[in-house]
Amino acid sequence: MSSAASFRVEKDLLGTLEVPADAYYGIQTLRAANNFHLSGVPLSHYPKLVVGLAMVKQAAADANRELGHLSDAKHAAISAACARLIKGDYHEQFVVDMIQGGAGTSTNMNANEVIANIALEAMGHQKGEYQYLHPNNDVNMAQSTNDAYPTAIRLGLLLGHDALLASLDSLIQAFAAKGKEFDHVLKMGRTQLQDAVPMTLGQEFRAFATTMTEDLQRLRSLAPELLTEINLGGTAIGTGINADPGYQALAVQRLATISGQPLVPAADLIEATSDMGAFVLFSGMLKRTAVKLSKICNDLRLLSSGPRTGINEINLPARQPGSSIMPGKVNPVIPEAVNQVAFAIMGNDLALTVAAEGGQLQLNVMEPLIAYKIFDSIRLLQRAMDMLREHCIVGITANEQRCRELVEHSIGLVTALNPYIGYENATRIARVALETGRGVLELVREEKLLDEEMLNDILRPENMIAPRLVPLKA
Amino acid sequence: MSSAASFRVEKDLLGTLEVPADAYYGIQTLRAANNFHLSGVPLSHYPKLVVGLAMVKQAAADANRELGHLSDAKHAAISAACARLIKGDYHEQFVVDMIQGGAGTSTNMNANEVIANIALEAMGHQKGEYQYLHPNNDVNMAQSTNDAYPTAIRLGLLLGHDALLASLDSLIQAFAAKGKEFDHVLKMGRTQLQDAVPMTLGQEFRAFATTMTEDLQRLRSLAPELLTEINLGGTAIGTGINADPGYQALAVQRLATISGQPLVPAADLIEATSDMGAFVLFSGMLKRTAVKLSKICNDLRLLSSGPRTGINEINLPARQPGSSIMPGKVNPVIPEAVNQVAFAIMGNDLALTVAAEGGQLQLNVMEPLIAYKIFDSIRLLQRAMDMLREHCIVGITANEQRCRELVEHSIGLVTALNPYIGYENATRIARVALETGRGVLELVREEKLLDEEMLNDILRPENMIAPRLVPLKA
Amino acid sequence: MSSAASFRVEKDLLGTLEVPADAYYGIQTLRAANNFHLSGVPLSHYPKLVVGLAMVKQAAADANRELGHLSDAKHAAISAACARLIKGDYHEQFVVDMIQGGAGTSTNMNANEVIANIALEAMGHQKGEYQYLHPNNDVNMAQSTNDAYPTAIRLGLLLGHDALLASLDSLIQAFAAKGKEFDHVLKMGRTQLQDAVPMTLGQEFRAFATTMTEDLQRLRSLAPELLTEINLGGTAIGTGINADPGYQALAVQRLATISGQPLVPAADLIEATSDMGAFVLFSGMLKRTAVKLSKICNDLRLLSSGPRTGINEINLPARQPGSSIMPGKVNPVIPEAVNQVAFAIMGNDLALTVAAEGGQLQLNVMEPLIAYKIFDSIRLLQRAMDMLREHCIVGITANEQRCRELVEHSIGLVTALNPYIGYENATRIARVALETGRGVLELVREEKLLDEEMLNDILRPENMIAPRLVPLKA
Amino acid sequence: MSSAASFRVEKDLLGTLEVPADAYYGIQTLRAANNFHLSGVPLSHYPKLVVGLAMVKQAAADANRELGHLSDAKHAAISAACARLIKGDYHEQFVVDMIQGGAGTSTNMNANEVIANIALEAMGHQKGEYQYLHPNNDVNMAQSTNDAYPTAIRLGLLLGHDALLASLDSLIQAFAAKGKEFDHVLKMGRTQLQDAVPMTLGQEFRAFATTMTEDLQRLRSLAPELLTEINLGGTAIGTGINADPGYQALAVQRLATISGQPLVPAADLIEATSDMGAFVLFSGMLKRTAVKLSKICNDLRLLSSGPRTGINEINLPARQPGSSIMPGKVNPVIPEAVNQVAFAIMGNDLALTVAAEGGQLQLNVMEPLIAYKIFDSIRLLQRAMDMLREHCIVGITANEQRCRELVEHSIGLVTALNPYIGYENATRIARVALETGRGVLELVREEKLLDEEMLNDILRPENMIAPRLVPLKA
Repeated sequence: MSSAASFRVEKDLLGTLEVPADAYYGIQTLRAANNFHLSGVPLSHYPKLVVGLAMVKQAAADANRELGHLSDAKHAAISAACARLIKGDYHEQFVVDMIQGGAGTSTNMNANEVIANIALEAMGHQKGEYQYLHPNNDVNMAQSTNDAYPTAIRLGLLLGHDALLASLDSLIQAFAAKGKEFDHVLKMGRTQLQDAVPMTLGQEFRAFATTMTEDLQRLRSLAPELLTEINLGGTAIGTGINADPGYQALAVQRLATISGQPLVPAADLIEATSDMGAFVLFSGMLKRTAVKLSKICNDLRLLSSGPRTGINEINLPARQPGSSIMPGKVNPVIPEAVNQVAFAIMGNDLALTVAAEGGQLQLNVMEPLIAYKIFDSIRLLQRAMDMLREHCIVGITANEQRCRELVEHSIGLVTALNPYIGYENATRIARVALETGRGVLELVREEKLLDEEMLNDILRPENMIAPRLVPLKA
Repeated sequence: MSSAASFRVEKDLLGTLEVPADAYYGIQTLRAANNFHLSGVPLSHYPKLVVGLAMVKQAAADANRELGHLSDAKHAAISAACARLIKGDYHEQFVVDMIQGGAGTSTNMNANEVIANIALEAMGHQKGEYQYLHPNNDVNMAQSTNDAYPTAIRLGLLLGHDALLASLDSLIQAFAAKGKEFDHVLKMGRTQLQDAVPMTLGQEFRAFATTMTEDLQRLRSLAPELLTEINLGGTAIGTGINADPGYQALAVQRLATISGQPLVPAADLIEATSDMGAFVLFSGMLKRTAVKLSKICNDLRLLSSGPRTGINEINLPARQPGSSIMPGKVNPVIPEAVNQVAFAIMGNDLALTVAAEGGQLQLNVMEPLIAYKIFDSIRLLQRAMDMLREHCIVGITANEQRCRELVEHSIGLVTALNPYIGYENATRIARVALETGRGVLELVREEKLLDEEMLNDILRPENMIAPRLVPLKA
Repeated sequence: MSSAASFRVEKDLLGTLEVPADAYYGIQTLRAANNFHLSGVPLSHYPKLVVGLAMVKQAAADANRELGHLSDAKHAAISAACARLIKGDYHEQFVVDMIQGGAGTSTNMNANEVIANIALEAMGHQKGEYQYLHPNNDVNMAQSTNDAYPTAIRLGLLLGHDALLASLDSLIQAFAAKGKEFDHVLKMGRTQLQDAVPMTLGQEFRAFATTMTEDLQRLRSLAPELLTEINLGGTAIGTGINADPGYQALAVQRLATISGQPLVPAADLIEATSDMGAFVLFSGMLKRTAVKLSKICNDLRLLSSGPRTGINEINLPARQPGSSIMPGKVNPVIPEAVNQVAFAIMGNDLALTVAAEGGQLQLNVMEPLIAYKIFDSIRLLQRAMDMLREHCIVGITANEQRCRELVEHSIGLVTALNPYIGYENATRIARVALETGRGVLELVREEKLLDEEMLNDILRPENMIAPRLVPLKA
Repeated sequence: MSSAASFRVEKDLLGTLEVPADAYYGIQTLRAANNFHLSGVPLSHYPKLVVGLAMVKQAAADANRELGHLSDAKHAAISAACARLIKGDYHEQFVVDMIQGGAGTSTNMNANEVIANIALEAMGHQKGEYQYLHPNNDVNMAQSTNDAYPTAIRLGLLLGHDALLASLDSLIQAFAAKGKEFDHVLKMGRTQLQDAVPMTLGQEFRAFATTMTEDLQRLRSLAPELLTEINLGGTAIGTGINADPGYQALAVQRLATISGQPLVPAADLIEATSDMGAFVLFSGMLKRTAVKLSKICNDLRLLSSGPRTGINEINLPARQPGSSIMPGKVNPVIPEAVNQVAFAIMGNDLALTVAAEGGQLQLNVMEPLIAYKIFDSIRLLQRAMDMLREHCIVGITANEQRCRELVEHSIGLVTALNPYIGYENATRIARVALETGRGVLELVREEKLLDEEMLNDILRPENMIAPRLVPLKA
């Protein structure tokens, strides 16, 4: 056959273009792909976004049929096409760059065209025979990019949310398990990198579990609070122009059913069309989680520093040789990678925030970048948490004896003795210990400031790591 | 008297220093003031922080007395001193820079010393006679900076929260009032700065009210969710070392009563001692509000652009002559200032986020910067909202005729005709209008595509700004 | 054949792993690929980085041979392998994620292993028979990741620099051409979105050329200033431990020759090993260019706003249909995409900055993120500039009549009359014009404040757009 | 006297206002002070900005007199007033908030009014008798805010630049002195917080000196490159409208002479009026310096961590008691404060960058925020460097024995032995040492892998901290 067969010609208001014959996308997608060669990250990188788009198209088709605007035959074909996308098929047809002008029109048209062409083939037509089923008139019926696209983004985020929470929860369980495992390991706490007072390694890991549990709860409640209000039905600017008065309620209801998400219509569709507040706060929350993870990973790197010239209280599992030049060196590569993910998420949050500020009048045209950055942050965060748990946390071991030696050797022990020997004695003992390199306990014993029984009682781990009744001096 | 009288000598573990005789602060505050000459912003700039500190000291003193560790006389003197600070007196004694090393120790000691010296005078002693009442042993009893300081910051934020909400609420009311006032003003909506479809100016201002109302609700619920869990009683690292086992519950309870805030003890004091997550998310929320305000102010500047070569749909009240060289020029100075406040708040959020990431092990030593930036953001935001309402929003007027002319002159009108004349006709009319500079309506009339009655009906404002029943074409 | 044939077994200090038989990378690359599944962006995305690595390996091999540490046979095989990478072959073998722990060790080992295996095959051995040529002992000889990797990053940036400058230069030419084309188009200048004083559209576009030319000069000089000092030869921490005393000078010299870049050894190798300052400032410069482009694109969107309800002084070329619901709508999609690229680059700069701050002691372990973000910024910037020029700037047309009408209709004209009719008259005329909607010129004529000849002289374009001799009033 | 005496009435185009009788500022300053109650930081906080404004006014007056537009008497009075401001008098009259709308008009008018009133009094008139000398007509003659204000900012930055460089240079000297002092102190280098290879503490401090020296050079060259091109003479938008054709050259020349700075006119005044690129890059450079300082301070905190449970290689001078609850605790408060300053500067850079992006058409109305943030960053940076040097670096002492013990105890020593005992032996020794807790050297001795002489030679400090000739194994 001639090479002509490898293309079909499509037309839009700017003219005609040759579309690859096997492409399910059409001319507008092709224009966008030609226009925007930027991030190199196509829409298909974020499957939940594609699924969100398909569900929106399905819900709109359902509503349009029920209102009598869409024939049963067209509805059936559109429905079948959407089902394929929801199942994960044809995602490679979503070729437009995540960074794009046009406020998402290219993403919306990519969905409209792919669905139309899948449907056309199912109806026995050729791809591109839009006279039988049209991307705009039929698939996009009663929608504008300005309501369909933000709705799909929100839905895409909601659809991926349980998996994010599950990864976070697994990480928490891993921290908690280590907290239990290390409960008996007495060690020195440090403030400002200086010796402070005793605690257990179990307390330290349990605190990691606690702090991430707060984020689990916060993320669990924030996502529905922020993302379930949708502007579907607002069409171009939220006035619902050219939509059937019955359309909005039906479409939102259908979308809630299809997606299984508690979606509700936004109260003020004008506002909802341009507002990016939900994404700003949601990204702010992701940033918080990233910052907490980064702090934890900094701690893991500090606690495992050494082995000889650092703190060396814990061992991280070796994941790869650390150096080609230094034999035996193993590095904390997993926490290091988490730190970098956290920094990337901070950068994403900034880009997204500036984009949110860039909205004008009835639309925020920077929404594609916002979508890109928030999906990227979620994916990075989830992968980093899985990596951290699986390749690091579960394999951590404690250097129990080292921990204990540091406590006994520490000046900070004197704080525990403070209520019994007095602030003045304590300060003097601390100074002598520092100057001579001797231990606090041997000095106290030497000076007979406390008898052995008392000393043993004070220094029992369970007595040092919690409030206890101290002698009164009112 | 000799000049010697203008100083008293105080002593700490590093030696002695001359403290100004009339200073209520003492040697440790003086050391900090000498060390940190950085932002030029002293603690006294944020009165709620000072009040928060005083309430913490009061609650601790109450608990210590009840547990028998503090005498009635000392308690009475401390209480009276705290009451003075809460009332607003002696705030000028809080001289330490908001940016400081030491994780807040200098702030905590500034409070301890000022309270001690006020109390000493009330007891009939001289300032500095700490043998009668000691900043550390008595005022700071059972506390560490590491629990007292974060508690005071949270409390300070809570104490100012109602005023912030009130300013936001007033601004919302101003937007809503304009929304009502402009409800009849038909105008063109714009997406991507291009003519879109009609709406009312009232809808536009009501959307401003709506979007800020979401933030009011979010801020109202987030503050108590984030800030009421306190780590008072955790002492140095959260283990509660050297505290009476009964102290924590009592102190938190007292603080809740004194402040009228629903404070509760943190479940995991180890975690709570170093965690900055609440501040990160709260600042993220402030940033969101700032971004929304900035978007609104961008809109106000666009809508009032001109008067002759811009959009000119609204007039902002003139606040000051706009130019020394261009007669009659008046500029949108108030929204411009709000934009800049928003950018400053974005910068604050970044500084705070990086500081939060910088925590290590059992403490976040960067907390002073976090406190500084969050208090600064709140103050800037509140002042900007008050300014915006008072000096701008309430005085905005509409150029009703200009708005109407732009609608009638607009190509976008064709969208409203679309369902009646068909997409093909609509596109052709649009093109001719653009090429010839003529109006859409005159072309439609010329071509008799719609009769006058129908046209009038379609173009009735109430019909263009909401969904309506359109002819079906299933 | 058995399935065993599809793998070979490799070994490192952590044990053995099955490496795909056709992979040129080895066990350490595989470990890294398994460990870091984060950004989804492999090293191969940035070909200049791969080429940079290959050049470093080539230079090291040359130096090692010359010093007698590497046999001629091994050197020849390594050289041939490096040549293939430099040519662009085998890049798909660089599979490690750009975000990785280990401070770049995985990237360095990816290069070592690929080069070793290409070389082994060329020598007639099997992949993995490292006894004949070893990734560490031979390819990495006298190097540490800590000197080879930062050197390769710098080199990668330098190698791509001319192309970046060329894209920027082409964009400048496009602005300048429009500046010339529009030189006769008189229009109103605007400050604070308010009518200011006349200028030409040519001046406006020439200013775009000027501002980008400053960046061209700055980028041209900054790159060599910042990036040509390399730490090759410093090995692990900059002390050059285990390197031949003659190695550093030779290796740097060879690398300069191979790359054609004016590379010089860093004066203080300890400092150079951990310092990220060059990247921070270079990224800051990229951010500046992005910010300028974003400002220009904001202007293009403002100037083309409308067509009927905006400024509409210029037309951007239509690149794709703007709306499925609004017939005839065409949007400024190209500038919109550039704005988003700029925001992404701002986010990259932040991530990179925080990573730079995260260096500790003798190394910055966050360097992989720094490399990733800086390469990403450059690629985004270059693609955005090409897109902007090709798809937008060259096709811009002026609405000359509209520009002229806005000038004549403007209040701002009064500023030009100011020196002739006096500030008081000017202010009064401005006010009357505003209140009545009439033109400044008709009012001046009506009041006979200036005769027609004088008026024509003042209002001649060439007289309004530059300083001219005004009546003196000392 | 009647209370009327405490005010004078002034008038502008918006009406009249009562100005405090003793105020040298006038009605426009008062309006601005009433409008902008935001940051609480008045212009007077940045004396160099005030001096910059005064010098601009002086230069303009000189040019205007020379061109015959300003009488000698007025010129003399203006000159005398400017001289007072340059000397530092009357700065408290600069009361407008650093955050302000109006693109700096209020700052410019604050200067115009203060100078006019000082001049009026000197001429024997009353403040406010502008008929004799007018803020706009005389002091602001031939200027617009849009050229006078950016010029004053640039000048203000240049005027403070030497002091900034001097502070940086002093800090470098302090690092270098410690580098020399600690040259003999052998210690372990660390990469990724893991033991690496030996170096000296002198090398470590010298690297601090080196890295800051790079910034000194960069700052020294960047400031003149970026800040000496001024747009004075461009008036409203850069066309120089209403200015005498001879004015620009004269005014710039005079300003260069007055200020002693190598100022030159911008080549494209349209571009120069709105361009903020110089500030973005200059702030980017300040951010880089801040990031480097923060990294150094992180290192200082790590190296001084302990005293017993950390690295403890160096001692920072004690600046204040570290804890009220932990006797003897002394914290690294100075580096901690520097870290926070660095974070604040990062935040400033972000705010400034977003403001720079916010410019529109012929002006950047966000310039006041840009000026505020850049002046703030410089002040913070300079104060932090002074603090760091004076209160920390000069007093640092080394724990020489501790450093030496860590080297001898370290596994990393094995790297130095690697070329002599082979990679296989080295790896095995490292593993045994780690497993048994024994030293590398004792194991090598036990196994007689090297004779004592050889071992002593290898381990001589001077041999471990630089490249040396190793046995060849080609």
